[in-house]
Amino acid sequence: MTTSISRRSLIAGSIAGTAAIAAPAFAKAAPKWDETVDVIVVGTGFAGLAAAIEAKKAGANVIVLEKMTFAGGNSAINGGIMTATGCPQQKMHGIKDSQELLEKDILVAGAYMNNREKVHQMVTQVLSNYEWCVNELGVQFLPDAIGQEGGHSVPRYVTTTNGSGSGIVMKELEYVKKLGIPVRLRTYVEHIVRDETGRVTGLEVRENYKFPDKTSGTVKRIAAKKGVVLCYGGFAADVKFRMYQDPKLDASLDTTNQPSATSELWRETSAIGCLQVQNDWIQCGPWGNPKEKGMGIGWQFNQTAAAEYGIWVNSKGDRFVNELANRKVRADAIMVEQQNGLKAFAICNEPNVQPLKKQRPGFLEKMLEAKILDKYDTVEAMAKGAGIPLDELKKTIAAFNEAVKSKKDPAFGRYINNDQVPMVDGPWYIGECQPKVHHCMGGLYTDLNCQVIDVRNDKPIPGLYAAGESTSGVHGAVRLGSVAILDCLVFGRIAGQKVAKA
Amino acid sequence: MTTSISRRSLIAGSIAGTAAIAAPAFAKAAPKWDETVDVIVVGTGFAGLAAAIEAKKAGANVIVLEKMTFAGGNSAINGGIMTATGCPQQKMHGIKDSQELLEKDILVAGAYMNNREKVHQMVTQVLSNYEWCVNELGVQFLPDAIGQEGGHSVPRYVTTTNGSGSGIVMKELEYVKKLGIPVRLRTYVEHIVRDETGRVTGLEVRENYKFPDKTSGTVKRIAAKKGVVLCYGGFAADVKFRMYQDPKLDASLDTTNQPSATSELWRETSAIGCLQVQNDWIQCGPWGNPKEKGMGIGWQFNQTAAAEYGIWVNSKGDRFVNELANRKVRADAIMVEQQNGLKAFAICNEPNVQPLKKQRPGFLEKMLEAKILDKYDTVEAMAKGAGIPLDELKKTIAAFNEAVKSKKDPAFGRYINNDQVPMVDGPWYIGECQPKVHHCMGGLYTDLNCQVIDVRNDKPIPGLYAAGESTSGVHGAVRLGSVAILDCLVFGRIAGQKVAKA
Repeated sequence: MTTSISRRSLIAGSIAGTAAIAAPAFAKAAPKWDETVDVIVVGTGFAGLAAAIEAKKAGANVIVLEKMTFAGGNSAINGGIMTATGCPQQKMHGIKDSQELLEKDILVAGAYMNNREKVHQMVTQVLSNYEWCVNELGVQFLPDAIGQEGGHSVPRYVTTTNGSGSGIVMKELEYVKKLGIPVRLRTYVEHIVRDETGRVTGLEVRENYKFPDKTSGTVKRIAAKKGVVLCYGGFAADVKFRMYQDPKLDASLDTTNQPSATSELWRETSAIGCLQVQNDWIQCGPWGNPKEKGMGIGWQFNQTAAAEYGIWVNSKGDRFVNELANRKVRADAIMVEQQNGLKAFAICNEPNVQPLKKQRPGFLEKMLEAKILDKYDTVEAMAKGAGIPLDELKKTIAAFNEAVKSKKDPAFGRYINNDQVPMVDGPWYIGECQPKVHHCMGGLYTDLNCQVIDVRNDKPIPGLYAAGESTSGVHGAVRLGSVAILDCLVFGRIAGQKVAKA
Repeated sequence: MTTSISRRSLIAGSIAGTAAIAAPAFAKAAPKWDETVDVIVVGTGFAGLAAAIEAKKAGANVIVLEKMTFAGGNSAINGGIMTATGCPQQKMHGIKDSQELLEKDILVAGAYMNNREKVHQMVTQVLSNYEWCVNELGVQFLPDAIGQEGGHSVPRYVTTTNGSGSGIVMKELEYVKKLGIPVRLRTYVEHIVRDETGRVTGLEVRENYKFPDKTSGTVKRIAAKKGVVLCYGGFAADVKFRMYQDPKLDASLDTTNQPSATSELWRETSAIGCLQVQNDWIQCGPWGNPKEKGMGIGWQFNQTAAAEYGIWVNSKGDRFVNELANRKVRADAIMVEQQNGLKAFAICNEPNVQPLKKQRPGFLEKMLEAKILDKYDTVEAMAKGAGIPLDELKKTIAAFNEAVKSKKDPAFGRYINNDQVPMVDGPWYIGECQPKVHHCMGGLYTDLNCQVIDVRNDKPIPGLYAAGESTSGVHGAVRLGSVAILDCLVFGRIAGQKVAKA
């Protein structure tokens, strides 16, 4: 038997005016733990691995827990594009950018619901984290490609050479192995233990867990002397929980996430008194392709080719949105077209797909083989094949080509890339756009040390840190594409450094 | 000393596969309570009093707790306008309306983030609750006035004869007194007690509490055999908590709420494992008047006169929004004008202020005395006085008068009232519009029995019910004006009926 805090003693505490009243009435951690370490990191995505690396380098004894049979989480299937303001690729292409411009773009897209201090903290570390990837992890980015996701004022993202976030995660994993940090797979976190002072002292986990059976495996209790770092990601694949937040996001919408993107730790942290905010801001990726499941590869054409160098049109042949507007604006616009019984198509022609071919060698061919993308010799054939009125489509392309020449898009104010050429020569490529549930902007409220805030008293919860998609603050209402990796690396590393010094 | 559940026994429970694992690790309620009743209702607004009335009528022994020195909360300073689709006043004015149209208006304004089952449940009871007010409470509504708040397709709100929600709350209080239900003032709820099964068994309160001193008064423990009904309202007056949800809502924004609209029970319910959603959807009333503090009375001109029968213009003399758009659209539009260094004015002329004079006898004079509203004999004098370019203002009024004649508003698609007349004859009235933080759309997630859902297991928390502004579901992204009272009465009454049968 263990001794444990009782409501009575809490009340006594409150009467006596002690600090005890501020602590949730959780049982004191049992004196006997099955194991004790300095730091437990939950999650093996960008953020969790970055936290583990920094904590270990700072001298802490660290373990990393992952509920699945493989490491990497959604980061491993992430698009591999990272905001890198000030990087050599921007200079090579003569693009003027600044931390201030990046900060402004993030706040505007976030509808100023962002935690401004955290946004500022992140943008001041954008170049240093790009360099950390290159110099310390040995990540390979395309040396001469610079891209632009929606809502960014200028091209500013670099791309991993393998066209996936795995290009970073695998390097992080190699480094983790080199540092001798154990990564424990099939380890499910069932409870977070807080003691009578409110401190998080460790975790109750299930080893040999079989996703998604919550009764599988055997329970084990692990103490964390310095603290726990939560990097458990979002819940985009959890239909029930996401529908609490926004009933529109029902099972009819596919997700880009792995099935493991579920809500159990969102629920657990909420129930133990962690402050969570903006959980209902859930982003759909507007560039999803309906002819494949999940994240797939078709988004790379819809975004990198058609949004950045081509056009998006509806079934009538009309452009309906700024192809480089933020993801929410574009996803909402597509859903409106669909409500009106129309489809959304992404179109690009041969000269303008060259940047994609350079960024993602072989991917265009893969999409054609998979039949998620169609290729036509002429605009006429494409219009016929997609069931779009030819005259209207030609009118739309002609109008866009005028915008390309004048570098001004009167219709939607879209940014025109320096190397954009008028859409004249074929062959032509066309894919369909279907929003898919992609990213949770809200989550745990953390301070500048990445400590989780207690909903009862506004104070950091001793021993509890968090980073990545499980947290709120940086993105506000809408996350800009290519900022997620930056967010995860910057705050994952800070969390690791801080917990090690705890 | 009390016995209490320990983490260990929880784990044992989980290993044994018992239900215990689903229960939060809260201490068992101490065997000794200071007092025991059937039902405790928290809050004395529309919802709390309605719940108390129904629970008592169903035979339960009920008490009502209020932390302030007076009863009524924000309901007592509410505008006193209630959606009443199907009421005699609508018929008198020949207005076609239906539950289906009301339901659609609510879902559209709510961006379909509403809980559709709860919206449907509410609209089916709109007329019966109007009749409950008139026949059972004896509430007096203006017999021939029917109004239209933003976002409603048609005029459908009735108005209390005293032009305030107190016209309803006072009648509820009289009824509560007649039924012999004790209303305990200065009683602050400090903790909600859950036992080892997760059931809410009672409350820890502070009697003789002095707002806002959380250490004032003496602690008392009250058991609720049947359950607790939470009707504690919103947190619009709690700058720190509302800024967690949306940092834009800082101290520079006034609120229409009483100072008592704070977050302590939002925090407590979150920390004991209640599911909360959409807390970041916080509505600003666009019709606030900056020359008075809080809710005041100026909004009655800005809305009932200028929005329904006049126009809203910026400092340049141009209309900038559909004056009958929903509150978020209008508040956002005003903030954009202000970002551009402009002010927002509400304008109406003598013939078109008659409906306001009828609805709120004497209020227009009060506003003029208080100098929160200005009166001018001519448009020329008004333009000069407010610093608006005369020519542009005249052009704007002329264009609007064309819309009145054609009953079509090409500029903004605004609904034109049946008894609207062109704005020609003076005198003229002008007030300023300033958004003020007004209503929390999100909150506790409740089922159709008004039971609060457990964030850990999706099940209703035994013994815990909620209604009113403390809950989410009905309004989604944006609450339509005049729907709040309906929401509070419908679900307050259901909560009272259900808890009594528990």
